[in-house]
Amino acid sequence: MSEKFVSRRNLDFLLYEVHDVERLSSLPYYEDHTRETYELVLNTALKMSRDLMYPYLKEMDQDAPVLEDGAVKVHPMVRTMMKEWGEGGWIGASMPYEVGGQQLPTTVTTACNYVFAAANFSSTGFPLLTAGAAHLVVSFGSNEMKETYVPRMLAGEWQGTMALTEPQAGSSLSDIGTQAEPTDKGYYRIRGQKIFISAGDHDGADNVIHMMIARIKGAPPGVKGISLFLVPKHRITSDGALEPNDVTVATVYHKLGYRGCPITQLSIGENNDCRAYLIGEPNRGLSYMFQMMNEARLGVGMQATAIATAAYYTALEYAKERPQGRNPSGKDATLPQVPIIEHSDVRRMLLFQRAVVEGALSLILQCCLYADLAHTQRSEQGQRHALLLDILTPVAKTYPSEMGILSVSQGLQILGGYGYCQEFPMEQYYRDIRIHAIHEGTTGIQAMDLLGRKVMSKDGLALRLYLEELQATIKSAEQYSDLKPYSDRLSEAMDALRKVTMQRVEIAMKGKVEAFLADATLFLELFGIITIAWQWLAQGVVAQKALASSCSENDGEFYHGKIHTMKYFFHYELPKIQGLATRLIEDEFLTLHMTNSVFND
Amino acid sequence: MSEKFVSRRNLDFLLYEVHDVERLSSLPYYEDHTRETYELVLNTALKMSRDLMYPYLKEMDQDAPVLEDGAVKVHPMVRTMMKEWGEGGWIGASMPYEVGGQQLPTTVTTACNYVFAAANFSSTGFPLLTAGAAHLVVSFGSNEMKETYVPRMLAGEWQGTMALTEPQAGSSLSDIGTQAEPTDKGYYRIRGQKIFISAGDHDGADNVIHMMIARIKGAPPGVKGISLFLVPKHRITSDGALEPNDVTVATVYHKLGYRGCPITQLSIGENNDCRAYLIGEPNRGLSYMFQMMNEARLGVGMQATAIATAAYYTALEYAKERPQGRNPSGKDATLPQVPIIEHSDVRRMLLFQRAVVEGALSLILQCCLYADLAHTQRSEQGQRHALLLDILTPVAKTYPSEMGILSVSQGLQILGGYGYCQEFPMEQYYRDIRIHAIHEGTTGIQAMDLLGRKVMSKDGLALRLYLEELQATIKSAEQYSDLKPYSDRLSEAMDALRKVTMQRVEIAMKGKVEAFLADATLFLELFGIITIAWQWLAQGVVAQKALASSCSENDGEFYHGKIHTMKYFFHYELPKIQGLATRLIEDEFLTLHMTNSVFND
Repeated sequence: MSEKFVSRRNLDFLLYEVHDVERLSSLPYYEDHTRETYELVLNTALKMSRDLMYPYLKEMDQDAPVLEDGAVKVHPMVRTMMKEWGEGGWIGASMPYEVGGQQLPTTVTTACNYVFAAANFSSTGFPLLTAGAAHLVVSFGSNEMKETYVPRMLAGEWQGTMALTEPQAGSSLSDIGTQAEPTDKGYYRIRGQKIFISAGDHDGADNVIHMMIARIKGAPPGVKGISLFLVPKHRITSDGALEPNDVTVATVYHKLGYRGCPITQLSIGENNDCRAYLIGEPNRGLSYMFQMMNEARLGVGMQATAIATAAYYTALEYAKERPQGRNPSGKDATLPQVPIIEHSDVRRMLLFQRAVVEGALSLILQCCLYADLAHTQRSEQGQRHALLLDILTPVAKTYPSEMGILSVSQGLQILGGYGYCQEFPMEQYYRDIRIHAIHEGTTGIQAMDLLGRKVMSKDGLALRLYLEELQATIKSAEQYSDLKPYSDRLSEAMDALRKVTMQRVEIAMKGKVEAFLADATLFLELFGIITIAWQWLAQGVVAQKALASSCSENDGEFYHGKIHTMKYFFHYELPKIQGLATRLIEDEFLTLHMTNSVFND
Repeated sequence: MSEKFVSRRNLDFLLYEVHDVERLSSLPYYEDHTRETYELVLNTALKMSRDLMYPYLKEMDQDAPVLEDGAVKVHPMVRTMMKEWGEGGWIGASMPYEVGGQQLPTTVTTACNYVFAAANFSSTGFPLLTAGAAHLVVSFGSNEMKETYVPRMLAGEWQGTMALTEPQAGSSLSDIGTQAEPTDKGYYRIRGQKIFISAGDHDGADNVIHMMIARIKGAPPGVKGISLFLVPKHRITSDGALEPNDVTVATVYHKLGYRGCPITQLSIGENNDCRAYLIGEPNRGLSYMFQMMNEARLGVGMQATAIATAAYYTALEYAKERPQGRNPSGKDATLPQVPIIEHSDVRRMLLFQRAVVEGALSLILQCCLYADLAHTQRSEQGQRHALLLDILTPVAKTYPSEMGILSVSQGLQILGGYGYCQEFPMEQYYRDIRIHAIHEGTTGIQAMDLLGRKVMSKDGLALRLYLEELQATIKSAEQYSDLKPYSDRLSEAMDALRKVTMQRVEIAMKGKVEAFLADATLFLELFGIITIAWQWLAQGVVAQKALASSCSENDGEFYHGKIHTMKYFFHYELPKIQGLATRLIEDEFLTLHMTNSVFND
């Protein structure tokens, strides 16, 4: 197996040189931290990931969770890892001091989680869900809840989950039917079925705390009648002991990948004895849940990027070491074979992998920076960054997930027959990464969120702010004549985006909602490519600037690699928007102007 | 599991209406056969696939082959299936009467194999390899070989294989090192290692007959020193018994998919007691082997299409039955949910799947028709069809393999979380189909074959013939005003192809071989999209013509479905060539003008 699964050099480049995370230290919330803290944290994450997570990548895949006597057994290392994450303060790292957190920027903690996920994606489901659930309690729960649950969750003793999906309500949350009935004892009695609940039960934690959406009896239909509950697997008796709370595991799914983490179907209140604790106000559950969903969406984009990263380094190492064939101009069979990295098609595949991986990672960190800036500033600046985060969340979820699939697939291709076999982790990466376009809102859902909500909100304010960000990067690129061709290309791409968006908005204005959203997925794809081009231009600017001053030979090679990969993106990836724009501008609406009899054969 | 995995209606449409396979009956070789024979054969194939193959799809995946005491154990049904295929005459169906074949057109037998592969892809590895190996013996073997081996292979008693790859020579056949030493006993003594040999050993057959390439001691280096040998697992003693021939199984690979069929690593002649029988003349092995390789490449394209077909019907059935959400203009949560096929994004994904599947199948059958016409005609017509088959083989191998991956992935996406779980066969299809872009020559190898050899051969004659075929379809489409916009689009696409090709050829003429081939894979992608657009236009012409006359309601729906899917292809898929053409026209050659230090991070 490859020894390298992430690049520390690239993380430093993105954190400090491209996104200047150090600027956060000037904000009161982060004032205790400097680059030294961040480096310490990142070094520890790298060490943990190498010593604790990476060695169990394959084993956790092969020894997938099983349901035994009503309980889910996971790999024994899950408990060890949760303990380490808890004791090391990783789960609450970005939370406020007063709840036991460390007030680290999410930009930095996400970089650490990315390192963990690159080492062993499945294992990161446990702490990330716990962190998201704890954050929800911190933001909207009662003081009692905060005191009772949060410390144990942040300690990695209790697992947190996100319990939304039901058999009849997957992407359509307005149709959830789990019902909560008030009692006079300070809790609700809840009953229902939840499916596809990640880490929904396991023996790596002493308790599982579900963030569950349900309807209070008599609540209005649709999303306006959804409330958020805290539903523990074990409830706490008056003397502090744990007793079962009538939450049972119906199924552990057998999955294509992501096998280290159990995904469960849960029966809640089968014996009418499940107690649920309302979080915040009745019927406002979905608005609370969006905090966790948005965090999870960025988390999914990060995890997809991490898997694609590990696959990139596996392919790169293989390509450097595997001799095979000769260059087209030197076919003499008596000469030794060359390493396959010498073949232009292998280089193209490696550049593709790298362009996707490092473009996606830059976008994820960009979004985290917006989150940190939004979260710690109350002013117009806070609002501005919140809107940028809003519009980019569906992109940061989807681009790494969809393009990550293709990126890993190209890596598998580089290994040829070996890529298809279990000797190398590539086939696992290929299985693992496929979940990300599905969970936390499918690509189709993200596309409707982007076009239907985010682009349209506040008369397009978020979109204007987004275009301003791109324009600023273009402006800084224009200072370098070598970058001018690329900033010009990004300008042209922005024109195409404006044109396509304008046309879609006009359709929306005419009230043609179906037509407006019909090709939202293609719109998201177009938007994603342009966004990553922007992130590459930003990286190109930093690299060009560094090359213009004196730098070490190693650094020089690194920056040249960045420039070259940027060029790859602009020459090979950005042109894909041409076909997409053509398609979006046409007004055929083939998916609307049809009957299902088209599919009768 | 879905009940439908292929469409008989579509097969009839393609075989009789689009490709007019009945015309073959006018050729002497096929004169005994009429549409009635073909229908009988196809009906039997459908019945066998439903009763015998489909029921074991999942089981053969889960109970993958194991190596026990030096022998490979496969699922017990493999022996049953081989017997049925043998006794039913399927393995030799397209071979001449004199060797026990039935002289059926490969267009028809491929349609049958497609049905088998859609039911259970892994199982079809066994008969198809046996057929290819037997065909090689028939074409180039001695009479004694034909008598000794072919009948038992066609009976499904003995397995045939294709033994090319070696540890140090995967895509680079010029580097094979397996060595054969002549003896004075009519055989060679052979020694070497072969890896990735499909069906290389198993207990579902009584013997395994390897078509193995090797170097005769003292042979020239490179491909000019490769000879072809028949190497049996068990050799035949003078009294007709079988005795071991010193071929041992070193490994059975554990694979991502294709698990029903063992892929093996073989040690040949470890005890210096492996007898090999030369086929044809020394040092001409690779030219013989190309017969089997080309057949296998079409077979791979067919198998990829078959898996994608089964995935399409699984997704279609799910989409029709699964209620989820409401249309954007009718979000009232008190109304019942709609089946997801009502959502435009799901329709888009289904149309994508169908456009890939039925476009690819049409191309596969087109190629088979060319093969049948080439094989049975000695004249210029035969030559013409041989060249068309030549140039289209890399496309027919690659388009279904690469686009099949995406097509199955979209089907998996339609099933959401269920697509990722083992309750549905989708995750298996997703694993199974990934092999096809790798084996029998990776996509990169196919691309160099297309651009470097096929396009350039005979001063571009094959390309000119290909363009003539497209032009003929365009001409017939122009008769219908509804099709005119699409024939115009295909004309424009041909212009783009001509322009790109011209530019590449100019580079080649300047002797810049590396630059010429640098983006061959993108050229193949462009070529593939245009080729499938042609196949869709051909289908559109037939459908339009049928709609212009009177037809039943069912037929009307079928033909409308064809027209609609054709439109989908032209509006959503064909525009992808814009970005590809832009990329190919540029002269950056980023993959050449770089050093590997770009990848030092």
